Amino acid sequence: MRYSEMFLPTGREVPSDAELISHQLMIRAGLMRKLTSGIYSYLPIGYRVIRKFEQIVREEMNRAGAQEVFLPMVQPAELWQESGRWVHYGKELLRFRDRHDRECCLGPTHEEVITDLVRNEIKTYRQLPRNLYQIQTKFRDEIRPRFGIMRCREFGMKDAYSFDIDEAGAEVSYQKMFDAYQRIFNRCGLNFRSVEADSGSIGGRYSHEFMVMADSGEDAICYCCVCDYAANLEKAEIVRPSENRTKEVVPDVEEVKTPGIRTIDEVCCFLKVKPNAVVKTLIFSADDTSIAVLIRGDHEVNEIKVKNFIGCNSLELADDQTITKVTGSPRGFVGAIGIRSRVIADYSLLGMYDCVMGANREDYHLRHVNPSRDFKIDDYADLRVIQESDPCPRCGRKIRFARGIEVGHVFKLGTKYSKAMRAAFLDQNGQEKIMVMGCYGIGIGRTVAAAIEQNHDADGIIWPLPLAPFSVIIIPVNMKEKMLADAAEELYRMLTEKDVEVILDDRDERAGVKFKDADLIGIPYRVTIGPKRLEEGKMEIKTRRSGEVAILPVSEIVPFLMARVGKTEER
Amino acid sequence: MRYSEMFLPTGREVPSDAELISHQLMIRAGLMRKLTSGIYSYLPIGYRVIRKFEQIVREEMNRAGAQEVFLPMVQPAELWQESGRWVHYGKELLRFRDRHDRECCLGPTHEEVITDLVRNEIKTYRQLPRNLYQIQTKFRDEIRPRFGIMRCREFGMKDAYSFDIDEAGAEVSYQKMFDAYQRIFNRCGLNFRSVEADSGSIGGRYSHEFMVMADSGEDAICYCCVCDYAANLEKAEIVRPSENRTKEVVPDVEEVKTPGIRTIDEVCCFLKVKPNAVVKTLIFSADDTSIAVLIRGDHEVNEIKVKNFIGCNSLELADDQTITKVTGSPRGFVGAIGIRSRVIADYSLLGMYDCVMGANREDYHLRHVNPSRDFKIDDYADLRVIQESDPCPRCGRKIRFARGIEVGHVFKLGTKYSKAMRAAFLDQNGQEKIMVMGCYGIGIGRTVAAAIEQNHDADGIIWPLPLAPFSVIIIPVNMKEKMLADAAEELYRMLTEKDVEVILDDRDERAGVKFKDADLIGIPYRVTIGPKRLEEGKMEIKTRRSGEVAILPVSEIVPFLMARVGKTEER
Repeated sequence: MRYSEMFLPTGREVPSDAELISHQLMIRAGLMRKLTSGIYSYLPIGYRVIRKFEQIVREEMNRAGAQEVFLPMVQPAELWQESGRWVHYGKELLRFRDRHDRECCLGPTHEEVITDLVRNEIKTYRQLPRNLYQIQTKFRDEIRPRFGIMRCREFGMKDAYSFDIDEAGAEVSYQKMFDAYQRIFNRCGLNFRSVEADSGSIGGRYSHEFMVMADSGEDAICYCCVCDYAANLEKAEIVRPSENRTKEVVPDVEEVKTPGIRTIDEVCCFLKVKPNAVVKTLIFSADDTSIAVLIRGDHEVNEIKVKNFIGCNSLELADDQTITKVTGSPRGFVGAIGIRSRVIADYSLLGMYDCVMGANREDYHLRHVNPSRDFKIDDYADLRVIQESDPCPRCGRKIRFARGIEVGHVFKLGTKYSKAMRAAFLDQNGQEKIMVMGCYGIGIGRTVAAAIEQNHDADGIIWPLPLAPFSVIIIPVNMKEKMLADAAEELYRMLTEKDVEVILDDRDERAGVKFKDADLIGIPYRVTIGPKRLEEGKMEIKTRRSGEVAILPVSEIVPFLMARVGKTEER
Repeated sequence: MRYSEMFLPTGREVPSDAELISHQLMIRAGLMRKLTSGIYSYLPIGYRVIRKFEQIVREEMNRAGAQEVFLPMVQPAELWQESGRWVHYGKELLRFRDRHDRECCLGPTHEEVITDLVRNEIKTYRQLPRNLYQIQTKFRDEIRPRFGIMRCREFGMKDAYSFDIDEAGAEVSYQKMFDAYQRIFNRCGLNFRSVEADSGSIGGRYSHEFMVMADSGEDAICYCCVCDYAANLEKAEIVRPSENRTKEVVPDVEEVKTPGIRTIDEVCCFLKVKPNAVVKTLIFSADDTSIAVLIRGDHEVNEIKVKNFIGCNSLELADDQTITKVTGSPRGFVGAIGIRSRVIADYSLLGMYDCVMGANREDYHLRHVNPSRDFKIDDYADLRVIQESDPCPRCGRKIRFARGIEVGHVFKLGTKYSKAMRAAFLDQNGQEKIMVMGCYGIGIGRTVAAAIEQNHDADGIIWPLPLAPFSVIIIPVNMKEKMLADAAEELYRMLTEKDVEVILDDRDERAGVKFKDADLIGIPYRVTIGPKRLEEGKMEIKTRRSGEVAILPVSEIVPFLMARVGKTEER
């Protein structure tokens, strides 16, 4: 396209509400504009990038045997009542009434609609497995939208849903999607990792998140330096340590007065001990009961692990009243001795002795506590958040931490929806069975934003070629010089003819302005046409990513670019 | 694809709520399913057709210089308040409040959003003209959704908006879109007409609707047998007749008693006259005033013409009270003599004399009335609906009537939105000017449904090749016979390799069932592989539209199909 005709408003100023670099660059490079809180319009070059990514997603989904459908955004309440989510989804589900006063919502996801569709059409095992996907606009009424399209309210998503006759089939469907996701993010030229993630209360043994690695990422992940283990911090397992501690003689428990000393830091300072010698006792309300969770002072409890271990539906830190009821003590002085509740401890307690712990008495702590000598621990389990000093749970080598942006999620749903909504089929023996489902999402805009987080410099975006809105930009340094303008037009014509996606910057602007815009919008290859070089019969090609410059005879420009953008002369 | 793996539920039964054939066939052929009133899910082959059409639209919009954007579905009330439509749009605009209690709506169209975007980014004439389009999901809360996706609530639309520095520029933009639409519907292989349509109160001298011709169409249009004039009935002009009537001597007006005789039919029967000798007097309330409209008894008033002629905002037939106030008579006996309001008459009154008319007195009519001799007509104008006997307003030859389905509309918006929302720019002299806009819509699903209305037979859909979900279907009459299955697989492989879109019907079904499904879903070319023919080294190709059958040697099948689907061996 000709730059002079494009709707491509670029800017030098950083928008005041944009914290993330991708958000800043998507505004500055004219990819999108905010309409209202958490809702954005894509401008032409932004939408070109979106469509490039969608096309890669579509090709790989089709290759994996998934079939594309297109489901409605406005959904009737009845389906959500059937699945139970009308009650449980919370305020991110935007609900309203239509002109006939029927309750509806804007689809934040489509499990209900797809399950309804499939249960009406699939009746026998011969029609299974099926995997249906769509690329469609979702709405989630985020309480605090931020980071541009990274966490917005209206967004494009690829969502796929698989239906199988049994767990083994669902496993195959899951693996196909996992492989397709690997291909998708590889094709985009992104540095990413698939990490094990928690499946929450939905069931299924595991799920995987696909993370684009970026220091600005919202998610912390850990990975092994040696083997291919990777997980998000919520999920990362910690292996049970061996119990070969030295059996030192520990004095009897002693109560010490610690007036107003409540936090781990205060206790350590006051009693001159290290946090790893303190036992933290946390009282939780789990469904209708209370439970004490013990953890080392320098560790952090992982509530998801606690929840999964005890198998409760709701879990939250107990209020003051409950704490007093269970321990007889106010908050800050709680300990495990004499407590009236089940006590579970993180594996790290196995290696502890001679510790400090709350005394269950206001303004007092205990020292010389030996877990299991001085009180009973009902169960030991992996209940804490992994730390960078922990070993890899697979191979025992060093764990590293990194940050990532979640762009995809493959998930085993099991029968959660198919059971609630009775998506059944007749098996080979004529028996009615419930379908086993999986769901698989990719955030479309989010991936594009993540690609920018990972690929930019001080001058702007550095698009990976497969996502670039255009591959080449031609910059004649002065459009008023006929020789330069003619050469630019001729090159533009030739590249267009070869289906190379090219911008001709035919604006009557200074060369410096044109270079700055080309860098900002991140076009992979820039051809500069200046008077001196052209007189020598040459042009300059600069590669955006490497900064590499090649001075080539005019006749070699087209073949050079075609080779770089992956087109062959024969095509 | 392999039929056995497709999510393609076909059915023999006609859905009870489907009146239109396109609605019936889209359900029966597994193109879509209803989710709730006026809201449909597209199944895989339905969505393939949608995407084929979208791609044609996209290519032609790009060729016309329009640039693709993607705008939000959830829109803030503020913009609609600025344009004034928050108040005027009515209940089709679905309004709701988000979790922060902010008023929003689901976009039924995007004039407000695009005007807001453009006014923020375009500042000078050098950035104009621009034409931005999108292919996006709209929501209009129709009171009575019907005819499947022909008149539904949630639907896909291509909407484009042009911005120009002046009327002359807007005219050029309009013409480019008009030409693009011609190319789009031509490429789809549809029989269509562009017809002049009313621009309503928005202004602009005209607009055009693109109609796919079909007897089941909701819209009546007229067209000239000779010249290329075509218009919808609302818009179709009727030329002022010449006044060369014979000046016969007409007796004086005479009052006749017509007890209980009110309608034109009753009057004609009672007084033994033809409807074309009766003057119908209609009293309208136009804004705050009343007006009498006279029309010949066999004609129908065109309220849009009346509204445009008198230039009022609201127009409706007067209630009984107003009629009595204006005429002194109850409904059914109203006439123009002695009336207390402005009187306008359709041109056809120019040729009338010795007529029958209401007497403005209960149970009485007048005869021997001569308009203009017996009462004053303030204005003559074109106020009626065209009839098939009327001459073409362009060339005077015969007008024909037909029915069509509106699938596109090109519209000159003028400055309606740019003025209300102050979309201004600086012209060459540094003067601030208001942009002149146009808007251009195509109903995506509607066009697909219209294509079916126009292209079907008793057995099912007959897709025009450019819209067909697949070009070829291969039917081995018995998958259990290895020779047939092998030949089918080999042909499938070869066609797939050549990028021909092909279904292999590998189901274990009787040949009759396969043939019926192939006809129902409307695949243009069917290759049948049976034992007798195959032994002779031959296969049968049937063309869905013509029913033509060709028996060809196996080696000629691929070249034959490639030629038919427009692929060349070299490609």
